[in-house]
Amino acid sequence: MKPLKRIFLPRFIRPSVLNRLNTPELLESLNFVAKSSSGIYHHLPLGHRTIEKLTDIVHRELHESFPNVSELALASISPRRRWEKTNRWNNNEMYRLDNDQFCLVPTCEEDITKLMTSHIKSYKDMPVLAYQVTKKFRNEKRPRNGLLRTKEFLMLDAYSFVESTEDAKSMFNEVNEAFIRIFKRLKIPFAKAVADNGYIGGDQSIEYHYLHDVGEDKLFYCPNCHTTSTQDKTESLPGTNLKPTTDVTVKYALNKSHDTLFCFYFPSDRQLNWNLASIATDYDLDSALKEFTDNKILTIFQNENNDPMFNKVVRMMDSRISSRSNFPDFPLKQYLKNNFSQITDVNLVNSIEGEICGLCGESPLQTSNSIEVGHTFNLNTKYSEAMKLNYNNAENTTENNLVKMGCYGIGISRVVAAIAEVNRDSLGLRWPSPIAPYLVSICSPPKTEEMNEKIVKVVTKLTESSQLANEILQLPNGEDNNTTLFSQISTSHAIGIPICIIVGSKTWPRIEIEVRGKRLKGDTDAYWKIKYNHLKDQYQWEVYQENTTEKHVVHLDHANDVIEFLLKDI
Amino acid sequence: MKPLKRIFLPRFIRPSVLNRLNTPELLESLNFVAKSSSGIYHHLPLGHRTIEKLTDIVHRELHESFPNVSELALASISPRRRWEKTNRWNNNEMYRLDNDQFCLVPTCEEDITKLMTSHIKSYKDMPVLAYQVTKKFRNEKRPRNGLLRTKEFLMLDAYSFVESTEDAKSMFNEVNEAFIRIFKRLKIPFAKAVADNGYIGGDQSIEYHYLHDVGEDKLFYCPNCHTTSTQDKTESLPGTNLKPTTDVTVKYALNKSHDTLFCFYFPSDRQLNWNLASIATDYDLDSALKEFTDNKILTIFQNENNDPMFNKVVRMMDSRISSRSNFPDFPLKQYLKNNFSQITDVNLVNSIEGEICGLCGESPLQTSNSIEVGHTFNLNTKYSEAMKLNYNNAENTTENNLVKMGCYGIGISRVVAAIAEVNRDSLGLRWPSPIAPYLVSICSPPKTEEMNEKIVKVVTKLTESSQLANEILQLPNGEDNNTTLFSQISTSHAIGIPICIIVGSKTWPRIEIEVRGKRLKGDTDAYWKIKYNHLKDQYQWEVYQENTTEKHVVHLDHANDVIEFLLKDI
Repeated sequence: MKPLKRIFLPRFIRPSVLNRLNTPELLESLNFVAKSSSGIYHHLPLGHRTIEKLTDIVHRELHESFPNVSELALASISPRRRWEKTNRWNNNEMYRLDNDQFCLVPTCEEDITKLMTSHIKSYKDMPVLAYQVTKKFRNEKRPRNGLLRTKEFLMLDAYSFVESTEDAKSMFNEVNEAFIRIFKRLKIPFAKAVADNGYIGGDQSIEYHYLHDVGEDKLFYCPNCHTTSTQDKTESLPGTNLKPTTDVTVKYALNKSHDTLFCFYFPSDRQLNWNLASIATDYDLDSALKEFTDNKILTIFQNENNDPMFNKVVRMMDSRISSRSNFPDFPLKQYLKNNFSQITDVNLVNSIEGEICGLCGESPLQTSNSIEVGHTFNLNTKYSEAMKLNYNNAENTTENNLVKMGCYGIGISRVVAAIAEVNRDSLGLRWPSPIAPYLVSICSPPKTEEMNEKIVKVVTKLTESSQLANEILQLPNGEDNNTTLFSQISTSHAIGIPICIIVGSKTWPRIEIEVRGKRLKGDTDAYWKIKYNHLKDQYQWEVYQENTTEKHVVHLDHANDVIEFLLKDI
Repeated sequence: MKPLKRIFLPRFIRPSVLNRLNTPELLESLNFVAKSSSGIYHHLPLGHRTIEKLTDIVHRELHESFPNVSELALASISPRRRWEKTNRWNNNEMYRLDNDQFCLVPTCEEDITKLMTSHIKSYKDMPVLAYQVTKKFRNEKRPRNGLLRTKEFLMLDAYSFVESTEDAKSMFNEVNEAFIRIFKRLKIPFAKAVADNGYIGGDQSIEYHYLHDVGEDKLFYCPNCHTTSTQDKTESLPGTNLKPTTDVTVKYALNKSHDTLFCFYFPSDRQLNWNLASIATDYDLDSALKEFTDNKILTIFQNENNDPMFNKVVRMMDSRISSRSNFPDFPLKQYLKNNFSQITDVNLVNSIEGEICGLCGESPLQTSNSIEVGHTFNLNTKYSEAMKLNYNNAENTTENNLVKMGCYGIGISRVVAAIAEVNRDSLGLRWPSPIAPYLVSICSPPKTEEMNEKIVKVVTKLTESSQLANEILQLPNGEDNNTTLFSQISTSHAIGIPICIIVGSKTWPRIEIEVRGKRLKGDTDAYWKIKYNHLKDQYQWEVYQENTTEKHVVHLDHANDVIEFLLKDI
């Protein structure tokens, strides 16, 4: 039988064609992924290698940061009863199985909390940090942005279990520091934002984002107090140059026991921010009614209370409106003045760029679209209470000793899709070296006996380096359009391989090296420049710039050293 | 915060308790796995490490055997339409999703064949071998044997695509040779059996089994022609010492177009073998009717044919019955003698131990229960035809050029469960070193300053060996029942760690090494014995037997060498 073919290596694609593709299409054209059906993708060899490298970085960082961390692989199928206990079964993005008695896990708080009830019995069994990198499932009704929101995706999820609120905070901080080290290893600039706990619940929450226009999220940044926060969490004060509002809209809401009516008044041209509204009510808002119309809210308020006239009504005024604004009519015909209160100067609406930071009150806020790639939560006892995860303290009493939990996630396949997006350029993809599918490619003119011998020598030399041994992509060379030297180099650049080696006859035994990768530390302090002056003669090392491409020529005997210097900045 | 706890290390379990547990219970008690619900398990750190090591062996062997093999990760969710094309949608063990429009993949022939229609266009694109190690799903209605049949399981599945029938055979043989090398690397004796293609379909099929009483499968072995085969595939001749049968049972069946009635006559105390029956009809049996009663079969035959009197009837007689046996009444009242045929001396029933091998006709068959862990199929064009996977040949014509496929599977999580079963002994689990969760454990008397220093020295020394660096399990030492030196050693043996190092004061700076692993090559040619005589003085190396345990005492400076010698046979 003939030797196996590597059919998943991409064919040559013209830059003019590449540039018309959006990033998901580009990843498909270059055979990183293949779409199976809407929102569902296969990972092909190039994509799979990239994912595996990121997974490996996550493993290494977690084990180095936490030598006793426990690595698990929890089941993908989870029984309904656990999700009912935590009130998360009614989620229409969850895949149901087997007559709705099971689901495919979108995340694993329920299962791991249940598991820990058999393993954590005493304060002596904590602190614990456990993690897994496994597939998660979400029945996205409208999968968007190709690879950023898919129905199945690889995710790192870590869970912590500690005794006290202080330990919970330390653990939360330590895991966030490890996450920051993971993102720094990837070399792509990222933002860390104060975020809302939302569907997962808990007390404290931080998101990790890549800033980019295609992102569906919006981050706010204050250049004075340096706070970055998500839309939900950003409070702002009206800028002094803004006109006062005249048209006012109202939105009604109820407290959790439905015996207090909240009336939120805000400018008609702005959007109510439910998180800020909830904070204004001291977290006593029934958010299950969020989507209900005002009429329905008022009907509930009137039906569930004997005589609503005696119930409390709280009017909240956004800080952008004044008493001279035009208010809508008040809906209740009768009410007691004593039960009626009014609070003014509350921040109730989504912030907009240019308004003043609500935290420091000093600077106008800046905004940017962004792609969320990680999220950490200090959960406190939300899950341990629902699943009865208690422990014995030193006095041997279980009562009221609920384990404090945290959960921490990085969307592995999402990070890869996001980096493809934020780091691409006119030649195609451009991977930072830690997750590039291969570190070096070898391109050469059509095969001759002599050329073959040279290629074997180059491969043998590169293989001597433990960093490069499994990182060599040899592109097929030949005479057809797809395999000329030019198409090989273009293909290597389009795939985003950081280092492209050209084996030619002109310079032999010196080889040409094209640097594809972006210098992620900035050009002036490039690592190779530090080495260059006292090694250039010994290595027969020359450097020149051809258009925008940095090229090195170096004697094969020293190629591994030079490549390793170059990779440090890519 | 205090250092993290490793709560998933098992506590000490008395051997008398261990021995009452079946293997799935044992794996649960020792924290290799945790049951989440019926047929669904989480993998805990020890189990996860074992699975990862096996996965790694599979990767390495496949990449070494096939340098250009393509590694993928196909989606878990697959659209219904593909399964309807291959007639595999009606499978009641398949998990359905999203209003029955998708399934969770039990195996990936449909998806990969569809994928290849975009990547294989010409004979120049072949041969191709692609594989993945991913989770598969099967809604087992009665999950049995704990970990051998679970609803989700990790599986290696490889798929080959070639031009010709000869290439298909070569590929099938090459992948089977790689599978044999994988199983040999695991060091546990296994059997390779001729098998039936069943649900997957195709032409040729081989199964890999571990022989063990708990196995649900049955293998037949002929000591004369050395053929091993599954029940479905084993044909036997009645032994000469068997009494001729007097009571005869009949089973009716129809051909695929339902115009021929087959009547299978066989001894009442034996079971009809549908595969042999199908072969006897030249594969013209409608196996969809397999579970139908005889009355129903006859009704179909009479209803679907205008005048059954004119239809063909074929009577097949198992070779164990003679014309003097008692036959049941013939069910049709009228038939034409010309349309009626009778074939005798056919093998129609499941073979039993002691009957003569049907292939060579020489020796009595031997049987054994077994656990199936791998299965390979030469599929021919079953899937490429259904999914229209054609290629252009050298003459540039696509017509009739269907790609020839093969598929190859190893149940990764099943292999681990099966080895746990076949290799356990009175002390607990006993892993062959290639998949042991750790290669060495360190046990020691309660912690003192002096003991701590010794342990650090031992760990530092072991870490110098690249083979051992990440393979050291340090068991907690202390005064309570769970952490005495005795419980540490018992726990290490129960988990099945091949090498148990005891750091004591008596022999220091020599350390004691207990060999837990079974010598998988047999004791006489143990690798360490070859080294022993000329190294014993230099290494201060002593060996003795304590009850059934082989113990080595060796100077710490040479411990790594001795451990590496010992591991070669375990």
